[in-house]
Amino acid sequence: MCGTDTATGGRVIKNSTVPPPCNHNPPVSESTENGTRSVVNNLSSEIPLNLDHGDPRMFESYWKKVGDRCKFTIEGHESLSYFANPKNLCWFLEPKLEEEIKKLHKMVGNVKVEEEEDQFIIVGNGSSQLIQAAFYALSPLDDSNPINVVSAAPYYSCYPEMADLLKSGLYKWGGDAHSFNDKEEPFIEMVTSPNNPSGVIREPVVNGGGAKGKVIYDLAYYWPQYTPITAKLDHDLMLFTVSKCTGHAGSRIGWAIVKDKEVAKRMIKFMEISTIGVAKESQLRAAKLLGVISDSCSNVWSPNFESFFEYGHLVLKERWEKLREVVKKNPLLSLQKYPLQYCHFFGDFSESHPAFAWMNCKNGSKDLEKILRGNKILVRSGRRFGTDPNYVRISMVCKEEEFNLFLQRLSTIKEISD
Amino acid sequence: MCGTDTATGGRVIKNSTVPPPCNHNPPVSESTENGTRSVVNNLSSEIPLNLDHGDPRMFESYWKKVGDRCKFTIEGHESLSYFANPKNLCWFLEPKLEEEIKKLHKMVGNVKVEEEEDQFIIVGNGSSQLIQAAFYALSPLDDSNPINVVSAAPYYSCYPEMADLLKSGLYKWGGDAHSFNDKEEPFIEMVTSPNNPSGVIREPVVNGGGAKGKVIYDLAYYWPQYTPITAKLDHDLMLFTVSKCTGHAGSRIGWAIVKDKEVAKRMIKFMEISTIGVAKESQLRAAKLLGVISDSCSNVWSPNFESFFEYGHLVLKERWEKLREVVKKNPLLSLQKYPLQYCHFFGDFSESHPAFAWMNCKNGSKDLEKILRGNKILVRSGRRFGTDPNYVRISMVCKEEEFNLFLQRLSTIKEISD
Repeated sequence: MCGTDTATGGRVIKNSTVPPPCNHNPPVSESTENGTRSVVNNLSSEIPLNLDHGDPRMFESYWKKVGDRCKFTIEGHESLSYFANPKNLCWFLEPKLEEEIKKLHKMVGNVKVEEEEDQFIIVGNGSSQLIQAAFYALSPLDDSNPINVVSAAPYYSCYPEMADLLKSGLYKWGGDAHSFNDKEEPFIEMVTSPNNPSGVIREPVVNGGGAKGKVIYDLAYYWPQYTPITAKLDHDLMLFTVSKCTGHAGSRIGWAIVKDKEVAKRMIKFMEISTIGVAKESQLRAAKLLGVISDSCSNVWSPNFESFFEYGHLVLKERWEKLREVVKKNPLLSLQKYPLQYCHFFGDFSESHPAFAWMNCKNGSKDLEKILRGNKILVRSGRRFGTDPNYVRISMVCKEEEFNLFLQRLSTIKEISD
Repeated sequence: MCGTDTATGGRVIKNSTVPPPCNHNPPVSESTENGTRSVVNNLSSEIPLNLDHGDPRMFESYWKKVGDRCKFTIEGHESLSYFANPKNLCWFLEPKLEEEIKKLHKMVGNVKVEEEEDQFIIVGNGSSQLIQAAFYALSPLDDSNPINVVSAAPYYSCYPEMADLLKSGLYKWGGDAHSFNDKEEPFIEMVTSPNNPSGVIREPVVNGGGAKGKVIYDLAYYWPQYTPITAKLDHDLMLFTVSKCTGHAGSRIGWAIVKDKEVAKRMIKFMEISTIGVAKESQLRAAKLLGVISDSCSNVWSPNFESFFEYGHLVLKERWEKLREVVKKNPLLSLQKYPLQYCHFFGDFSESHPAFAWMNCKNGSKDLEKILRGNKILVRSGRRFGTDPNYVRISMVCKEEEFNLFLQRLSTIKEISD
């Protein structure tokens, strides 16, 4: 997307000098000539609709309904110290946040919650920072070559930039895990499950590495609103983020669940040097919000109050049904399919309803991102995910009116031609 | 400090495996055998008093007095988006925080505040992260060797680790700026003013580099409670942090003031990839706290309500006087001296009263950190700042009862012997 010309807000964007932000739901990156950006979608018919980034504004309406139960207040004299819990290995983790994280995982059943010394929780400024902390922690301690970081295409578009930004001598981007052949060398495999962009459940693909391969599970979307919860995961290094769980992307709170104490210590060291921990206000507010989600699932307020996950599941299910209807009518477009699976949390069978649609043009030679852009829909090209330009990733967690406009514009595309 | 044996909390600390955290006021780093840390000082006579880190708890009592005026509240449906201000180059900076930063700088007169396009404000997760963003932004874009980051000894103890953590191919630690001779090569000089650890006002020391030398001004302590405000600074790249300004270290909010738009863009790119911006809760609370400080200086509440800077100045002045009294009585100890200077903010002459005392043993062959440790006072050795072990840095911004205990223990040291 960077460096291309795009009409936005009636202004022509030329040769953007700001590279695309790199995140789980990257904000749109185009700078206009006067330095402003178009990210808050103006729904006028003349203005492109931005679904490139995955800003989770969909969840605002739920939090409005919850009202004062999720209001957060802090006094001026509170939380001055660097320390949140000096007794914890992760001294900057608020005990209340740790408690609510564990409570929610137990309730949802998506992760096996262990005793204190068998499992370490590390808080980060979003899971992006924790990915980098994990790269650091899993790199060889000796003076060997930088370890390869690989991930199966289509992989999350920001992993390459995270791995290569500082030209580290510890780790470097090694490309598509499917074509990683140097199995005698140590490597780190990023397994994003459900996958960003495609929404499918994943396992590692590099076999034969044995003890030399280390796996980071990026489980940002392993929550009931997006996918059936089929198993209590119990991997060595798992990452989550509040952005995708509650929708509070602005809070920049992620957490890692780590089994090995030495790996946890190195991740904490990275966090100390990178940012000296994580803002306490955000941690305490996140604790409150996670607690509200747990409460909403326990029917503590009123039996008729919809739980957070029910709300998210229903909204996304409806959006996916509407999108599939529109796509079905267009002979040239196709969407990723998902199996029907039993969700232990909802106690029912369901398909996945991912936060992103992974759409492709059946005629593989087309540039689908460009075609949609021509129809005033901005999405992220498959190229960015290490795959073909006939694929695109489209945010499904935008605001209701944005989603409706998207369907309206998509349904008017009669012919697919570059 | 790391790797040494220290008695803490009645337990013996052995071979700490967690390296010292790296920050402006680093938390104590020793892990006890059972993984816990002693950072909240227990004032029992048996337990070492930790003044190694600069946790600014001194300011809590002021914020208590301010009461509800500094209470911060946020609703559950607010600030979900990644974006704070899409119109700003720094799209994750809350407009209210930018406004309050500028208002406070104008009121204090420590920085020349310019028009929008002549000066860019970038928010970070503490100034630590912005230091790393600045290293990235000032590194050569071509494939040349990593640029040297230098700073005049005694330099802030965490710069070396920040520069070398990831073995970056873009920048590396180059040591004491006084002995940096390769002036034909590009370099970055960190100028910490007032200096951490010594509290003195500083200027760059590497001359002759000309256009090849780039300077980062770390101005964390350039506030009236610590030092006379003698000039409105107007450098290319200046860094500040809420931790040292208001005392809210737990909020992890720093800001950079940058003149060059391309440098600002690269710093923003680093922030995007590193953490996708900065928690909104902390930014909004910091805005509120900075606003309260401005109000306190404008006498908007009552004419008798002490301003934040008066409070900080008076407490630190008194602490320094008491410390100098104790040190004067000990023929072997000495403290850094500061000139009397006119402070434009207070409209009066004053000495500096830094956040750290930089103390030395007149007999230069002694290990002062070890001696104080033997007297149950934990401080940071001069070695860590690139200088002699007969120097130590001692936090002056601890809680009142900790400071009194420090004086009491220091005054009982009769003989200096290793």
